Amino acid sequence: MALRKLETQLLYPEFVQAVETGDTEALEALREHLTMEDIAELVGELEGPGRADFLSKVPATEAAEIFQQLDLTAQRETLDLLSTSRMAGIINEMDPDDRTALLETLPSHNTKSLLSFLRPRERAQAQKLLDFPEDSVGRLMTPDFLAIRKEWTVGRSLDFIRFNGEDKETLNDIYVVDRQGKLLDDIPIREFLLSPGDRAIADVMDGHYTALLATAPQEEAIQAFKKYSARTALPVVDEEGLLLGIVTIDDILHLEEKETTEDIQKFGGAAPLEESYLEVSFWSMLRKRSVWLIVLFFGQMLTASAMSFYQMEISKAVVLALFIPLIISSGGNSGSQAATLVIRALALGEVAFTDVWKVLRRELLVGLGMGLILGVIGLLRVVLWGTAFQSYGDHYLTLGLAVGVAVISVVAWGNIVGSMLPLVLKRLGLDPATSSAPFVATFIDVTGIVIYFNIALLVMSGRLF
Amino acid sequence: MALRKLETQLLYPEFVQAVETGDTEALEALREHLTMEDIAELVGELEGPGRADFLSKVPATEAAEIFQQLDLTAQRETLDLLSTSRMAGIINEMDPDDRTALLETLPSHNTKSLLSFLRPRERAQAQKLLDFPEDSVGRLMTPDFLAIRKEWTVGRSLDFIRFNGEDKETLNDIYVVDRQGKLLDDIPIREFLLSPGDRAIADVMDGHYTALLATAPQEEAIQAFKKYSARTALPVVDEEGLLLGIVTIDDILHLEEKETTEDIQKFGGAAPLEESYLEVSFWSMLRKRSVWLIVLFFGQMLTASAMSFYQMEISKAVVLALFIPLIISSGGNSGSQAATLVIRALALGEVAFTDVWKVLRRELLVGLGMGLILGVIGLLRVVLWGTAFQSYGDHYLTLGLAVGVAVISVVAWGNIVGSMLPLVLKRLGLDPATSSAPFVATFIDVTGIVIYFNIALLVMSGRLF
Repeated sequence: MALRKLETQLLYPEFVQAVETGDTEALEALREHLTMEDIAELVGELEGPGRADFLSKVPATEAAEIFQQLDLTAQRETLDLLSTSRMAGIINEMDPDDRTALLETLPSHNTKSLLSFLRPRERAQAQKLLDFPEDSVGRLMTPDFLAIRKEWTVGRSLDFIRFNGEDKETLNDIYVVDRQGKLLDDIPIREFLLSPGDRAIADVMDGHYTALLATAPQEEAIQAFKKYSARTALPVVDEEGLLLGIVTIDDILHLEEKETTEDIQKFGGAAPLEESYLEVSFWSMLRKRSVWLIVLFFGQMLTASAMSFYQMEISKAVVLALFIPLIISSGGNSGSQAATLVIRALALGEVAFTDVWKVLRRELLVGLGMGLILGVIGLLRVVLWGTAFQSYGDHYLTLGLAVGVAVISVVAWGNIVGSMLPLVLKRLGLDPATSSAPFVATFIDVTGIVIYFNIALLVMSGRLF
Repeated sequence: MALRKLETQLLYPEFVQAVETGDTEALEALREHLTMEDIAELVGELEGPGRADFLSKVPATEAAEIFQQLDLTAQRETLDLLSTSRMAGIINEMDPDDRTALLETLPSHNTKSLLSFLRPRERAQAQKLLDFPEDSVGRLMTPDFLAIRKEWTVGRSLDFIRFNGEDKETLNDIYVVDRQGKLLDDIPIREFLLSPGDRAIADVMDGHYTALLATAPQEEAIQAFKKYSARTALPVVDEEGLLLGIVTIDDILHLEEKETTEDIQKFGGAAPLEESYLEVSFWSMLRKRSVWLIVLFFGQMLTASAMSFYQMEISKAVVLALFIPLIISSGGNSGSQAATLVIRALALGEVAFTDVWKVLRRELLVGLGMGLILGVIGLLRVVLWGTAFQSYGDHYLTLGLAVGVAVISVVAWGNIVGSMLPLVLKRLGLDPATSSAPFVATFIDVTGIVIYFNIALLVMSGRLF
């Protein structure tokens, strides 16, 4: 029901008690009421030993089904707590794609030891999937699909599906292959339901299908599912067009979530955590966050160097220093905006490097517009305080002018740097998300100081210095 | 095939020429080779008049199919360029959920005028869907589903599906309702294929189903699809449990993309653009980006006020001012990191307000750790330059100490502000993404100046002042 999540949670205390006291009858009753997903949700909230305990008591296939719905951190943690035979039972029963997802996150010696517990057929399959490059479509794939021949009829195909479909992950699409196993077409299951039994498969085929290459990056799979939105699974082939497996849309939904999280963490200037926030260890968190902060800190130290060039001017007119944070962070903010918008537009394919002039022109114009608004506010601020409180000595008008012009320039400069950097990185084959907001802001801070002082020297020379 | 996207693009010049010269034979040949999605992709790249021209020449159902795969900006633009009769034909043939998506983005007088072109049945349906609150599950729903009765057999159900299934968006799940239309269960189509024809539906039912409430926020639908990953559609019910429609997973994939884009744009300190980067008008872009920049600018002006409190100290020791940008932006960076991580963890449900103490403790510790590393680097920088270039006068050791301690404090402070603000906003029922990196950075800039000068006064008093 609508409030399923809430309802499931309401059963949590009852569930914990049943697990802890080993009350199998109460557990049985609870399992009657809950879907496998609900149970997995509850099991996921138990502590490690409780999870292992529960998974040891239910039948092996059910244990595997629940286990593979836990998040990867929980899977790894639980694996170590299970008896060897139960552990072996679970990993043998897991869906091939979920098994790859687990195996690829383990240290390589653990992967090898786990592989040795697999039955020969499962081991060969798991090894084959792991042989595909990291972040490739092959790693997302399950070889559990149904393939038919175009010489068959709809009726024969339905018999075949009935006989072989039981353990397949999805039957929403059926694949037509030739004698060599080359993919010829994919047919949504509805076509079988809507066609008479004596119709030839060749007549049901429309010859339009989209396959993913097993070695292609996973990003391509996400794009394909977005485009072919009527499909809930897509076939995966090798270079020769041989059908190797399928990728299902639920994996895409999870993959998209994972990739977005990584992108967002990069935006924020941290290396991707790879585990959930509360589960990352202190040292791993410290390491992943410090790396970029240290790099940024070295960049920021240039602000001190830049300012020391103008130490004499500051000592003659301390008021100049008062507006440094205001000016440089306005540029940092506009630059962060521009970088964020362009990085996201690149990720969505809305913008490409060929649009570089269009983007530059637009960011320059928008930057000048925004700079003008902020510059006028800055000018007014200086002039108002200058007249009302005599804060800035006699030359407050010139100071205001310097601040205003500097704000316009630095804001427009921020837009240009923020928008161009991701495009250039993308062009060089690097990840545009690396040019995250903090990087752009740091760069603008250093250059902004130079811009500000040069404008100030120009506008105010002879007055304050 | 794997390189479908590329292949489609290769046909683009041919396609444009055929459209422009009105070469129907060439178009016919191209359409033979391409899926509807490929054609939609090519049509989407034509200019407005070309799109309208193409959509006027193909049969109405095909035009509707292609039209509803264009992005919303292109749909709105094309609508105005079509003849009234073609426009009416298209919107009558659109899938109900895609139609709602279009109607809800139009200004209300346009929505009304479009509704008047719908046939009575379609109009009533469209109006009913629009009556659900904005961003509710009801707005994502299509009423095109197949419902059967539990008294039926598998065979009778299959006949019913065969007879009524033709125009349904998906047949992957079939719904069992009672006499009043109340949802009793959902059955994946595979169960029909794997069951003998004389089996009673009541025996196929497992009584486990998950339904969404039509008035629930769309976010709940995203979560439900992630949890029930074997489902490609979920039923939608009203408060009484009456089955109203279904939501399909492809809409969820697009919704997730849209919501993530909005979140990322908020992270970057801009209001969500709502259109693709290159399609937003100059004025709309300027408005959406200026609002927050102006708010931030007013916040940043407090840095000038804060600094003017310490104007006398600066004039006595200008070197103090040199390190202001370095110190405050280190805090800004650590604060942005913390805010980004916590906002994303909140969005993924990894963290809730109840974890506030756990988060605070962790951010304080990580902050002190990171601050210590940066603080030592800062201290070394001052001492090295002080001995090597005599940059900072005689008291460079004390200055280095002040800078080091300030960096530790401000970095830890940044972590605390950045992590707590999103949690507090969430608690108050506000959108945590509003506390985006630039907001946290601005707050840290102002408070960081105060922290730095107080530490400097404490450490250096009697030496420089």
